[in-house]
Amino acid sequence: MAGSSFGRLFRITTWGESHGPALGVVIDGCPPGIPLAPEDIQRDLERRRPGKRLTSPRGEPDRVEILSGVFQGVTTGTPISLVIFNRDVRSGDYTELAEVYRPGHGDRTYEQKYGVRDWRGGGRSSGRETAARVAAGAVARKFLAGRGVEVKAYTVAFAGLHVDSFNRDEIDRNPFFCPDATAAAAMERRVEELRDAGDSCGGVVEVSARGCPAGLGEPVFDKLDARLAGALMSVGAVKGVEIGAGFAAAAMLGSENNDPLTPDGYASNNAGGVLAGISTGMDIVARAAVKPIPSISKPQQTVNTRGEPVTLSIKGRHDVSAIPRIVPVCEAMVLLVLADFMLHPAPVEKR
Amino acid sequence: MAGSSFGRLFRITTWGESHGPALGVVIDGCPPGIPLAPEDIQRDLERRRPGKRLTSPRGEPDRVEILSGVFQGVTTGTPISLVIFNRDVRSGDYTELAEVYRPGHGDRTYEQKYGVRDWRGGGRSSGRETAARVAAGAVARKFLAGRGVEVKAYTVAFAGLHVDSFNRDEIDRNPFFCPDATAAAAMERRVEELRDAGDSCGGVVEVSARGCPAGLGEPVFDKLDARLAGALMSVGAVKGVEIGAGFAAAAMLGSENNDPLTPDGYASNNAGGVLAGISTGMDIVARAAVKPIPSISKPQQTVNTRGEPVTLSIKGRHDVSAIPRIVPVCEAMVLLVLADFMLHPAPVEKR
Amino acid sequence: MAGSSFGRLFRITTWGESHGPALGVVIDGCPPGIPLAPEDIQRDLERRRPGKRLTSPRGEPDRVEILSGVFQGVTTGTPISLVIFNRDVRSGDYTELAEVYRPGHGDRTYEQKYGVRDWRGGGRSSGRETAARVAAGAVARKFLAGRGVEVKAYTVAFAGLHVDSFNRDEIDRNPFFCPDATAAAAMERRVEELRDAGDSCGGVVEVSARGCPAGLGEPVFDKLDARLAGALMSVGAVKGVEIGAGFAAAAMLGSENNDPLTPDGYASNNAGGVLAGISTGMDIVARAAVKPIPSISKPQQTVNTRGEPVTLSIKGRHDVSAIPRIVPVCEAMVLLVLADFMLHPAPVEKR
Amino acid sequence: MAGSSFGRLFRITTWGESHGPALGVVIDGCPPGIPLAPEDIQRDLERRRPGKRLTSPRGEPDRVEILSGVFQGVTTGTPISLVIFNRDVRSGDYTELAEVYRPGHGDRTYEQKYGVRDWRGGGRSSGRETAARVAAGAVARKFLAGRGVEVKAYTVAFAGLHVDSFNRDEIDRNPFFCPDATAAAAMERRVEELRDAGDSCGGVVEVSARGCPAGLGEPVFDKLDARLAGALMSVGAVKGVEIGAGFAAAAMLGSENNDPLTPDGYASNNAGGVLAGISTGMDIVARAAVKPIPSISKPQQTVNTRGEPVTLSIKGRHDVSAIPRIVPVCEAMVLLVLADFMLHPAPVEKR
Repeated sequence: MAGSSFGRLFRITTWGESHGPALGVVIDGCPPGIPLAPEDIQRDLERRRPGKRLTSPRGEPDRVEILSGVFQGVTTGTPISLVIFNRDVRSGDYTELAEVYRPGHGDRTYEQKYGVRDWRGGGRSSGRETAARVAAGAVARKFLAGRGVEVKAYTVAFAGLHVDSFNRDEIDRNPFFCPDATAAAAMERRVEELRDAGDSCGGVVEVSARGCPAGLGEPVFDKLDARLAGALMSVGAVKGVEIGAGFAAAAMLGSENNDPLTPDGYASNNAGGVLAGISTGMDIVARAAVKPIPSISKPQQTVNTRGEPVTLSIKGRHDVSAIPRIVPVCEAMVLLVLADFMLHPAPVEKR
Repeated sequence: MAGSSFGRLFRITTWGESHGPALGVVIDGCPPGIPLAPEDIQRDLERRRPGKRLTSPRGEPDRVEILSGVFQGVTTGTPISLVIFNRDVRSGDYTELAEVYRPGHGDRTYEQKYGVRDWRGGGRSSGRETAARVAAGAVARKFLAGRGVEVKAYTVAFAGLHVDSFNRDEIDRNPFFCPDATAAAAMERRVEELRDAGDSCGGVVEVSARGCPAGLGEPVFDKLDARLAGALMSVGAVKGVEIGAGFAAAAMLGSENNDPLTPDGYASNNAGGVLAGISTGMDIVARAAVKPIPSISKPQQTVNTRGEPVTLSIKGRHDVSAIPRIVPVCEAMVLLVLADFMLHPAPVEKR
Repeated sequence: MAGSSFGRLFRITTWGESHGPALGVVIDGCPPGIPLAPEDIQRDLERRRPGKRLTSPRGEPDRVEILSGVFQGVTTGTPISLVIFNRDVRSGDYTELAEVYRPGHGDRTYEQKYGVRDWRGGGRSSGRETAARVAAGAVARKFLAGRGVEVKAYTVAFAGLHVDSFNRDEIDRNPFFCPDATAAAAMERRVEELRDAGDSCGGVVEVSARGCPAGLGEPVFDKLDARLAGALMSVGAVKGVEIGAGFAAAAMLGSENNDPLTPDGYASNNAGGVLAGISTGMDIVARAAVKPIPSISKPQQTVNTRGEPVTLSIKGRHDVSAIPRIVPVCEAMVLLVLADFMLHPAPVEKR
Repeated sequence: MAGSSFGRLFRITTWGESHGPALGVVIDGCPPGIPLAPEDIQRDLERRRPGKRLTSPRGEPDRVEILSGVFQGVTTGTPISLVIFNRDVRSGDYTELAEVYRPGHGDRTYEQKYGVRDWRGGGRSSGRETAARVAAGAVARKFLAGRGVEVKAYTVAFAGLHVDSFNRDEIDRNPFFCPDATAAAAMERRVEELRDAGDSCGGVVEVSARGCPAGLGEPVFDKLDARLAGALMSVGAVKGVEIGAGFAAAAMLGSENNDPLTPDGYASNNAGGVLAGISTGMDIVARAAVKPIPSISKPQQTVNTRGEPVTLSIKGRHDVSAIPRIVPVCEAMVLLVLADFMLHPAPVEKR
């Protein structure tokens, strides 16, 4: 069943495999009249791209091309087609994986579902698919910027290390998108240890949105938080999502968790900017739990396509963690959810 | 924007307010030929209904009526309309709340979004809306039972108390749907303390599904886990969702979190039955963090509709926790997600 | 597959069978703040209801009840549930049809699709289903009236008789909704002849909408005319749809068919108010071809459920033509299409 | 609002403007395991391509590239991205049209809707957009061929000339896709007259589908005929759609129009293969009325973007009629509708 589209009014459809000729996205429903150039998108793609020290050495340039929907530098209201051609494709690295199921990956589930799979670098299930999401998110960002909405994602935990302080300016200064410089330094040391050990790690990404008006979200199934949860959980390595106080709220008392209302607004934001599925006007705050990358060089038990036991040690170009590359992806998903809701009119009739 | 429908093939649309004449659901896409009687639905409604000691004393009978889609005791493939008339409606209890915004509720966000709100018992944002979900879930259960799929929800944490053991048979023996009798007894004591204190609490609900075939879920946005996350987060009091190891996975190493594959299947289930968004054939395991019920008699700071500060102490019939009533609701949402995916054919062409 | 919903923003879901307990519709996405009373809906239902001389003698009162979405006389933005209980249900009339397939009806296709069918009066495939559409259309009409849009349907051909003149005031003065009094009188004589002959007839319904702004319709698949065509063709007896000059345009020259543009607007309206799928601001004009009612007392050849040949003469309460009852139904479908598009914001960004 | 997607299970999204860098389509939901090569698609594209004598002299090669969804020559179940780069783009031809609204085109409605338009060759509203539909239809054809379904479109009327005979083999032998060789010859003469006169013409296209099983179509809004009507009316120049006897049925008696049922099946096919919105198993027959191409060199009255009157004579490369190029497009739309319904399982539960 078709599952590669997201959004109702600001609607995207992504396509492409890790080692196919190209990948891309069609954005349908973007309003006309928004200035848009490839550089607007390229900037965001650079933030998730491999080639940095932390991430895999695949030197993919990730040049985006705009194939439709923009005329004389401005969106026209028709579908915007973005494409990124895959240039550094070395499928040869993967031929030995054609007949083995990597633990923690979708190799076996894809084969069970489709009866066939593209085993080159994970095919459609590769993290590379998220480049298309980031490209679409960049377009959503342009639209939202014009409405005063700003979205920022950052790392709040990595390999069990947590941030202790929050400095917004620090986020783009370190390779972890971490708002705490001290924590970032510790994370860097942790990466080296894990690389030496042939192992990998996960972490927690937080996304916050400023400037959203009250009133976004549609009861009862398309609540703002429901859509955010679905959006973030659709990102490959994400295994948990929470809004505001999240899982901590489960252990709080009502008198602790309720955000008091004052004539100046809410006195706290345990709600994470969402009440009854509708935005309150406070910052929207969501967090995503990211599992460790399953590709490790440490030996693992698995089976091959004939069902025989195999000991597998995955070589090749792999990251130690989906963080930091997943950070701009989480940001993109929140941008896309908000763009979708922001497109809807305030439907109140004048009386 | 329309937001009261859920699902693509097994599609439900709910309607109704807490203190309106009735509430209900239309189930469109349920296969024909399934025996269905009101009692099949009534049984599940009883599990979430008020009137038990733990929950609010509203003595609503919640009698479901089947108005369409069933002929001679069997579904016909046409829409099934279920309705529950509200009989014990005392809106008078709420008139004093018509001009005040209750903290932690949707009173203010609804008014900001719609410019008008039904203040009787929360109107559409009331937990009562979930009766329609449970009714629809009961129909999904009938369909899934014929395919060998079984879904069960239970409480794993309540007011900071956690279960230590798991006994499936115990779940329906205590009012908390708790699989640990000792923990259930402690929870019961906690309820009394909170009621005396005029406060409320939350908890964590786990849902597990047995018997699902591998192959459910549609990459990349309609992944099984993405749909589960959106479904559970759409339930009123839920602020977090996790699959399998969930947030714990964020602090694990790849070598710990990966589920090894053996000739006999997966050796563990940190994935919670989902890899790359597609079911593995293992039990599907999801958890939802439930916030404390915001209606408490303990005094709170808030404002009225004129923006003036008010100290509010909420009287009337209110539960101490959304647990246990939310347990069958979480179960229903997972049933509905699975019914939707189970309706889709295995689309593989013979070669 | 679920197929009983229509519209994207102003979204309706209908349910109910001819001889079940009730039928109804859920309207999701209707803006808040619109005054709405049962009489607003009842008025439209009266226009399609049986009991008039022309139509079948089933004396169904068709009383609509509003079960949700309206508070203190005004829509709240939440789903509006409308129900009409079936009171004059004499299924006994149909028991002899349980084992025979009526020509021109859906008896056999429903059974082939679903493996089961509700044979009482056509079940879900009965024209009675359209009462729910008319009820929903009445709500759309209230919304559109506030935006200055007015929709009117009328009969332009009946049993081969065509209207020669157009008098808008005449439409509601004769039982055919015919804008030509002379033609209406001829139609009345034709009905008597056909009733005597035990036969039935069809005709053509035209729907025109005044006051629509330019800009409605979404290229390339959700064009305004594409949605109108799908909407009208979804009405049971409709076998053809055309916009503006329609089929006549197929035999015209470009120089004849093009509507010249002048500083005062379009000089003609062969386009029927739609160019490139987008409304022009001129009247929107659509026509639907209605086939003769298949239930006739004249003997017909058919087969029973065992495949044996049967000569069938259908007795009971049946209309001679779907006209006039189908006229308000076509009107409702156009109302629903326009409400859906009118809900969408003009998305142009200010530059 | 997003409007460039079509279908629910076999879902396509098209993009691209007449004179942009490229146009294309993403096909999401195509089953895995279907052999697919560029030539399978190229063959259908050739049938609609310009360059033949009848059509405009734009020598576009229309080479399709498959960018995703196919691995080792076989579909994988993931989205199939097809792209056609525009090579023969002479926008200069259109600069004089940047400030004038061509009658019968979408120039003015696009500008009214979006506030901006791509005036190069009609931009998104150009007939060139349909190349993407034909490419997607070719993939649907591959899928349907495996299920025994065959779809064929042909011209039954052109400039007021009608076919008198039907010879299936003749269809691909003449440039009109006309099943009557004598009529085709007359059409050819008519084209020359119109070209000399600087005028254009329309016609009627019929599409028939063989081999469809009974049971396709979803009551009550997604009826097979409703979807066909919406699909065909979404094609640029189409102004009318009919199924089976269509508009002629409006003047028939019930006793004439009903298709008698015999032990060997239906004795006639006035229904066009659809009863109550569900396929009967007979050939599905639909017709589309095609308006004359609005671009004519004969002088026309119009206005420019400043609202001033202009006499316009359109030069450049234009067809005399949308026929024959629209014939493969109508065929593609029916292929896409049928593929969508054929993907759905027969949902009957065994009892």
